[in-house]
Amino acid sequence: MNQPALTSSYLTRHLGPNAEEQQHMLSSVGYDSLDALIEAAVPQDIRLEGALDLPAPLSEFEAQERLKEYASRNTVLKAFYGQGYNDTITPPVIRRGVLEDAGWYTAYTPYQPEISQGRLEALLNFQTMVSELTGLPIAGASLLDEATAVAEAIGLMSRTVRKGRKVLLDERLHPQVLVVGAERARAIDLEVEIVDLSEGIVGEDLVGVVIAYPGTEGDITDPKPIIDEIHSRGGQAAVVTDPLALMLLPSPGELGADIALGSSQRFGVPLFFGGPHAAYMAVTDKLRRQLPGRLVGVSVDAEGKEAYRLALQTREQHIRREKATSNICTAQALLAVTASMYACYHGPKGLKAIAEHCHDLATRFAAGVRSIEGASVKHEVFFDTVAVTLPGSAQAVADDLAENGYLVRVLDEHGLCVAFGESATEEDLSVLLGACGAQVPDASVDVPVVELPRREETPLVHPIFNSLHSETQMLRYLRVLADKDLALDRCMIPLGSCTMKLNPTAGLEAISWPGFANVHPYTPERFTHGWRDLIAETEEWLAAITGYAKVSVQPNAGSMGELAGLLAIRRYHLSRGDDQRDICLIPQSAHGTNAASATLAHLRVVVVATAQDGSIDVEDLKAKLEQHGEHVAAIMITYPSTHGVFEDTVREVCKLVHDAGGQVYIDGANHNALTGVAQPGQFGGDVSHLNLHKTFTIPHGGGGPGIGPVCVAEHLVPFLPSDPVDPSVDPHSPVPYEHGVPVAGTAHGSAGVLPIAWSYIAMAGPEGLRQATAVAVLAANYVAKQLHDSFPVLYSGDNGLVAHECILDLRPITDECKVSATDVAKRLIDYGFHAPTLSFPVTGTLMVEPTESEDLAELDRFISAMKSIRAEIQEIADGKVQYVDSLLHQAPFTAASVIADEWDYQFSRSQAAYPVAELREWKYFPPVRRLDEAYGDRNLVCSCPPPEAFEDPES
Amino acid sequence: MNQPALTSSYLTRHLGPNAEEQQHMLSSVGYDSLDALIEAAVPQDIRLEGALDLPAPLSEFEAQERLKEYASRNTVLKAFYGQGYNDTITPPVIRRGVLEDAGWYTAYTPYQPEISQGRLEALLNFQTMVSELTGLPIAGASLLDEATAVAEAIGLMSRTVRKGRKVLLDERLHPQVLVVGAERARAIDLEVEIVDLSEGIVGEDLVGVVIAYPGTEGDITDPKPIIDEIHSRGGQAAVVTDPLALMLLPSPGELGADIALGSSQRFGVPLFFGGPHAAYMAVTDKLRRQLPGRLVGVSVDAEGKEAYRLALQTREQHIRREKATSNICTAQALLAVTASMYACYHGPKGLKAIAEHCHDLATRFAAGVRSIEGASVKHEVFFDTVAVTLPGSAQAVADDLAENGYLVRVLDEHGLCVAFGESATEEDLSVLLGACGAQVPDASVDVPVVELPRREETPLVHPIFNSLHSETQMLRYLRVLADKDLALDRCMIPLGSCTMKLNPTAGLEAISWPGFANVHPYTPERFTHGWRDLIAETEEWLAAITGYAKVSVQPNAGSMGELAGLLAIRRYHLSRGDDQRDICLIPQSAHGTNAASATLAHLRVVVVATAQDGSIDVEDLKAKLEQHGEHVAAIMITYPSTHGVFEDTVREVCKLVHDAGGQVYIDGANHNALTGVAQPGQFGGDVSHLNLHKTFTIPHGGGGPGIGPVCVAEHLVPFLPSDPVDPSVDPHSPVPYEHGVPVAGTAHGSAGVLPIAWSYIAMAGPEGLRQATAVAVLAANYVAKQLHDSFPVLYSGDNGLVAHECILDLRPITDECKVSATDVAKRLIDYGFHAPTLSFPVTGTLMVEPTESEDLAELDRFISAMKSIRAEIQEIADGKVQYVDSLLHQAPFTAASVIADEWDYQFSRSQAAYPVAELREWKYFPPVRRLDEAYGDRNLVCSCPPPEAFEDPES
Repeated sequence: MNQPALTSSYLTRHLGPNAEEQQHMLSSVGYDSLDALIEAAVPQDIRLEGALDLPAPLSEFEAQERLKEYASRNTVLKAFYGQGYNDTITPPVIRRGVLEDAGWYTAYTPYQPEISQGRLEALLNFQTMVSELTGLPIAGASLLDEATAVAEAIGLMSRTVRKGRKVLLDERLHPQVLVVGAERARAIDLEVEIVDLSEGIVGEDLVGVVIAYPGTEGDITDPKPIIDEIHSRGGQAAVVTDPLALMLLPSPGELGADIALGSSQRFGVPLFFGGPHAAYMAVTDKLRRQLPGRLVGVSVDAEGKEAYRLALQTREQHIRREKATSNICTAQALLAVTASMYACYHGPKGLKAIAEHCHDLATRFAAGVRSIEGASVKHEVFFDTVAVTLPGSAQAVADDLAENGYLVRVLDEHGLCVAFGESATEEDLSVLLGACGAQVPDASVDVPVVELPRREETPLVHPIFNSLHSETQMLRYLRVLADKDLALDRCMIPLGSCTMKLNPTAGLEAISWPGFANVHPYTPERFTHGWRDLIAETEEWLAAITGYAKVSVQPNAGSMGELAGLLAIRRYHLSRGDDQRDICLIPQSAHGTNAASATLAHLRVVVVATAQDGSIDVEDLKAKLEQHGEHVAAIMITYPSTHGVFEDTVREVCKLVHDAGGQVYIDGANHNALTGVAQPGQFGGDVSHLNLHKTFTIPHGGGGPGIGPVCVAEHLVPFLPSDPVDPSVDPHSPVPYEHGVPVAGTAHGSAGVLPIAWSYIAMAGPEGLRQATAVAVLAANYVAKQLHDSFPVLYSGDNGLVAHECILDLRPITDECKVSATDVAKRLIDYGFHAPTLSFPVTGTLMVEPTESEDLAELDRFISAMKSIRAEIQEIADGKVQYVDSLLHQAPFTAASVIADEWDYQFSRSQAAYPVAELREWKYFPPVRRLDEAYGDRNLVCSCPPPEAFEDPES
Repeated sequence: MNQPALTSSYLTRHLGPNAEEQQHMLSSVGYDSLDALIEAAVPQDIRLEGALDLPAPLSEFEAQERLKEYASRNTVLKAFYGQGYNDTITPPVIRRGVLEDAGWYTAYTPYQPEISQGRLEALLNFQTMVSELTGLPIAGASLLDEATAVAEAIGLMSRTVRKGRKVLLDERLHPQVLVVGAERARAIDLEVEIVDLSEGIVGEDLVGVVIAYPGTEGDITDPKPIIDEIHSRGGQAAVVTDPLALMLLPSPGELGADIALGSSQRFGVPLFFGGPHAAYMAVTDKLRRQLPGRLVGVSVDAEGKEAYRLALQTREQHIRREKATSNICTAQALLAVTASMYACYHGPKGLKAIAEHCHDLATRFAAGVRSIEGASVKHEVFFDTVAVTLPGSAQAVADDLAENGYLVRVLDEHGLCVAFGESATEEDLSVLLGACGAQVPDASVDVPVVELPRREETPLVHPIFNSLHSETQMLRYLRVLADKDLALDRCMIPLGSCTMKLNPTAGLEAISWPGFANVHPYTPERFTHGWRDLIAETEEWLAAITGYAKVSVQPNAGSMGELAGLLAIRRYHLSRGDDQRDICLIPQSAHGTNAASATLAHLRVVVVATAQDGSIDVEDLKAKLEQHGEHVAAIMITYPSTHGVFEDTVREVCKLVHDAGGQVYIDGANHNALTGVAQPGQFGGDVSHLNLHKTFTIPHGGGGPGIGPVCVAEHLVPFLPSDPVDPSVDPHSPVPYEHGVPVAGTAHGSAGVLPIAWSYIAMAGPEGLRQATAVAVLAANYVAKQLHDSFPVLYSGDNGLVAHECILDLRPITDECKVSATDVAKRLIDYGFHAPTLSFPVTGTLMVEPTESEDLAELDRFISAMKSIRAEIQEIADGKVQYVDSLLHQAPFTAASVIADEWDYQFSRSQAAYPVAELREWKYFPPVRRLDEAYGDRNLVCSCPPPEAFEDPES
């Protein structure tokens, strides 16, 4: 280990501690070697013997060469395909300043608002943008994709319109949206009807209708009559829109919609072979508390200054378990930021010009086609997408265009759809028309067109969309916002259950390459061999790692992976006639999403108790199995447990459930403690999901993107997610139980960021992955050992070891002297650290996961900060300082607060700002003081406040 | 203007002020339109009528598409060519974190040390690296390229060995080094002999010898005997080395060399078709004050804390004019930083492993060739480069390899040279040997090799090379250093004469593309059509802009452009038999480099007086012309003048000199005031150079790279720089006066960054360039107008207008109350600004150049900061505050200084840190207080101090 570059793998770059440091840490923990530690920590009956079946590691250079090869085997066709994924231009300053900037992409979800003001502001801009475009007051901070956003909208409607059981889907929705929306609705036992809304609404028992605006063929019809009608029947209306079209069209809010949603991809986000892209959703004020996903709101800090934070506590550990209505945690933060910056950069005028440009080309394309003998234009009113009928020759024209580098959509034997995007040119128009057999119509000839309905007001009036039009302004705005936040590029983020490890630049670079980034997801297979092979290889590697038979990377977040896994289990039971198996056992300590996902898969949740030592209470499990017998569909466990311990009963637990006829779902959230060491597919799991943004180095992006592959044993392979645009799937009727259903709008979900995970596995190799795991376990045990005297570690195995994270119990301290886990979390900011996970899985505790990527100096810096904080606490415990007057209660401190001319605190300025000497060399100051969370929820504001709200009260 | 994206050019992104803001500024200045302003500001007799002859502007997207096309027309051959340019792997974390990070590349030269500690530290690392590798104590912060570094070394030797007039060049030096070194030596009237040093040293009157170590064919001979011999004859020895070879070979210092130099390119810097790359030079302690270029040194700040700054005041305005010994200003800072980070990342073990890897492949390649019947290896001792004799088939083998994607060097009909670099593999070895007709020798067969001489000590022992081995550590180190500095990504840098304008990301992105970055400069023409066409197009555009007949982009800095221009003039005179024309007239106000360049071109400098109003004193000019008559070779003027004024006598000045038989050199440093508005080639210039890193948006990179194209009128075209590897050039004999001489090691100099300038011109278009100029002039006049009452503007034209910059006169204030221009410069840091140019061209003043890229808000922020500072000064003038106690004298303030528990200042903490309210929203704190410049020069330390030196004295 720690060998020179050429004689070792990339792993030495990935690992924080070098060989010497590892030895030091091992001594501290009491083991001679990493092997000895792993042998002691991991129960013998689950330990993997031998190495993973993976190829030998590549160097960074070799990995990038291989990735170039994959990229070169994709043919980038200029995208005129549409269907929810559009040609757009990412402004270089935004690509480099957001998508390729470590300050943005290595950031965590903004749960700690004091160190997240930059990305919170950017997400608030996103919400403001969506709100203005849709004409609805409350917009969230992004959802996973358009198709699942429709599923969320259906869920939302069904919760608020409780008496209805049927949902109507506009047949003009994109095919992938229909399939995903319909199956997700059916999964929660709604009846789905896919209808031609031009006939009006028919039927009873309706929760609502989902309307396409525009339709998948580009046709635009006025949704207002339908909205009015559904309202008159007591149902709700969700409108699926295109944000660029909304620059011109009347907004859904104006038309009376309750919900508007869509994909913001075409606001500057690359096609990425399907994702990641940020979906958006906005709702009426009445529905504000029903909105799924994260919502950024405005509040004030301890000094009364306006500040941002996540509103309504929709954070994952607060997802209301079995009462949950959505399982969304990870969103698409980085992509939402990108889309919002695109709107800021172009502003209303620029966006309108882009919209008019697309519309103009579409209009002239239609005119050109109308001039062709026998050809016709299918719809009179359209924005950027024109469906044409070319009798018998649609496929031939498309093939011909593909040869010339153009991708268009074939509807059927006669129908072709052409969608114009931002980069489309006159020359493109001429080529497209030429292939159809027409010429660009003469400008002097008056083309009769049916005018688009137009909105009256101009959206995006907020100053933020009207003040960043020069590249210099945008560059600085991005820098200033990123500087406000603490991300992995500045310090350790020791977040238990989140695995904030190094994101390898070698892989990150690849995702911008045009051969990956600019490929439309529905490009025919013959042009996408590179992507398909890379994806297949990644899936094979993940199967080899987890010990399962097969893997699908389709789920674009861990929550979707869970859902996909549970749907597979449910369908497996149903396909065997076991309709009654509808109970999902979930241990008390489980992550909130587990129960939420079970609910979305229409499983009833039954909680299994946790024993005193934090492990699953096997006796209670037996009792529950006894009680529920053949109703048990599955158990969902996390391994190692969310308590950060390798429980040695896991095989027994699995066996008990299997014996009861249930399936075992092993949540892979903690797979960073298992990779190369144990395989859930081999020690009892039937299904798992992974979080590639935890274990496999995809960055968190400030709250997404993520990828949550679902991994299944042989008997569940048929139930893996299917391709949403597989022509054999008919959304009108339920997918038979013998098959899987899609959980995202494209076959490979957030493929765009997969090269990162691929590169990590390729560069680490089988031994490297194992070593990374061992060092992660070592680091957690080192921290636990060093801090145990200051803060008791709540759970550990019989051997006294933790797994890859440890829970520090603050409750005795809180009882003694009021100092809470939150106080410690906030005070850590003053020491230049992101807080550990707060109050999960046990309220009043901090869960620390250092990961393998932090070197000894950084671990020691954290340990010494925590010890210093312990000493600060002791002053309170000893009665020398009152809690309310303490550093801990007052933390964190902004620069302005410690520079203030008046100083009324009981402690000194240096104690506040420089509690340890190294901080004088490097110091991060948060831009705001502690947030008042309650104030923000009482006074919910979820779009950008006017600039005057930020004026210094003193000035 | 400021039209929406699609209907306007990129220019609206480039310009800071939008149309409305421009109107506001015009009103303030008193003009109706930009046209009216330009008509008033620019003398009628030089104004360009009509538009520049350039193509219509492209959008960012179109420009990038065009650049992709160029890149795709280069065939990237894997480089085994050597000759000073080697295959290397740029670690992705360094590529993204330095070369592609705005915090690094938009920074200015670190003349203001308080806001430059990050890049100063990185450059000190570079110096330490060079010092350790070469075994010589004093290393500079980079030179332009290896060939010109040899020229600098010759100059250095000739200055210190004053009695000698002859220099010996080792014939084993690279051909381009021989040509450039020999011609630069001949230009300063040294005699040059290119010799076979294996025969020992012959001759008298020697200033020194330049020894190749290794030789261009890879052969390594011990330089010690030659060094000893030259020393015994009173001369000096410069050794040209390869930094990677120095990981293994005895160091030049150990062998007694006085000077060691070379290129650091192969330490992670892309081939870039020849540049930019950082050359290095190290010298003995005795020569420390003779070292050309910048030198970073260690000093202390006002609180006694160790801090870095440029030592020995080698800043450009201090270049000692006609007494100058070097004209180097711009270095290759960004590339030096890259190379130093590469050394930090790999550390001594990693670098040694890379060196051994190259050596091992070379050894086995040689063994393979030896097995071929009739073939032979030319030299017994080599590092990474093997010269072989393949009778009659060298070219055929090279052609064959090229077809397979490999680039090797053909020496002659029989000789082939193969140089192994970092990314070379076993497979490459096999292909290379295969093409020669051999196989990879069996590992079991003992290959008789002559062992390399080996150094005993391991270089790079300093902790900085042994503590940053994980990617996380490197990522954070790069971030922490960049955060210490103020660059364009955070604020305006209003540096007069430096034009710190926006660097367009669209162009910056392109330089990393493999089709540009990975091309070896000596790749045959048939594989480099993309590069050659892009360069030719750029040269044509620059000719069209300047009104000259032809342009060469070869000079890789403005200083080299000047030299190339003056050499052209001198050769022109010589070719016409005008040997006596050896005087260069230079106005008093000229930039220091002008005189330095004249000296290097062996011209005598005669100074022309400046009139009261700052313009050239025409009467004095007439007198000087009269006095020197037919000895006048040229005048060098800057237009608009360094006083920031459009002088209306420029045509007259040119005519007077022409009438006297002299040539007119117009320095293009201020071309940002001329582009599209006037053409030096049309109003009297015979030669100009441009600074693409000023006017044409190449970033300053913290002190380089730059490009200084030389532009000439028709009669000087033959004298433009020639290709240094043109086979028709024989370095043994002087290049005939009828031809030009090369001024860099490759035909196209720093081609690698040319796509940035190309993209700016392509995206701005003829009207856009003109408009950018007009807005730059407007911004300068707006600032001048707004600040005139606070700080008098020293010079302006008859119309009361300045050009693109203005000089604020602090001298009356200094006289009145001691507050100096330096005090204001340092206090501006507290307001979040980089200082204007300090004491150039007039001591005691500040020269402000806002450029066209700063928006009105930023201009107003600067104006209000200056006004606030003026009020602070008034307090002193009014006697309310003593100068020594004042904010101005104490500035700047670190965060620690205003957070200190004790506060003994006469002003408050908020006055120190937050003199204006906006600073509470965004505030930059410098990491150190005001530097003690004198201390550092008295106690010269130019390599990294040991870590304990930085310990907090209090801790």
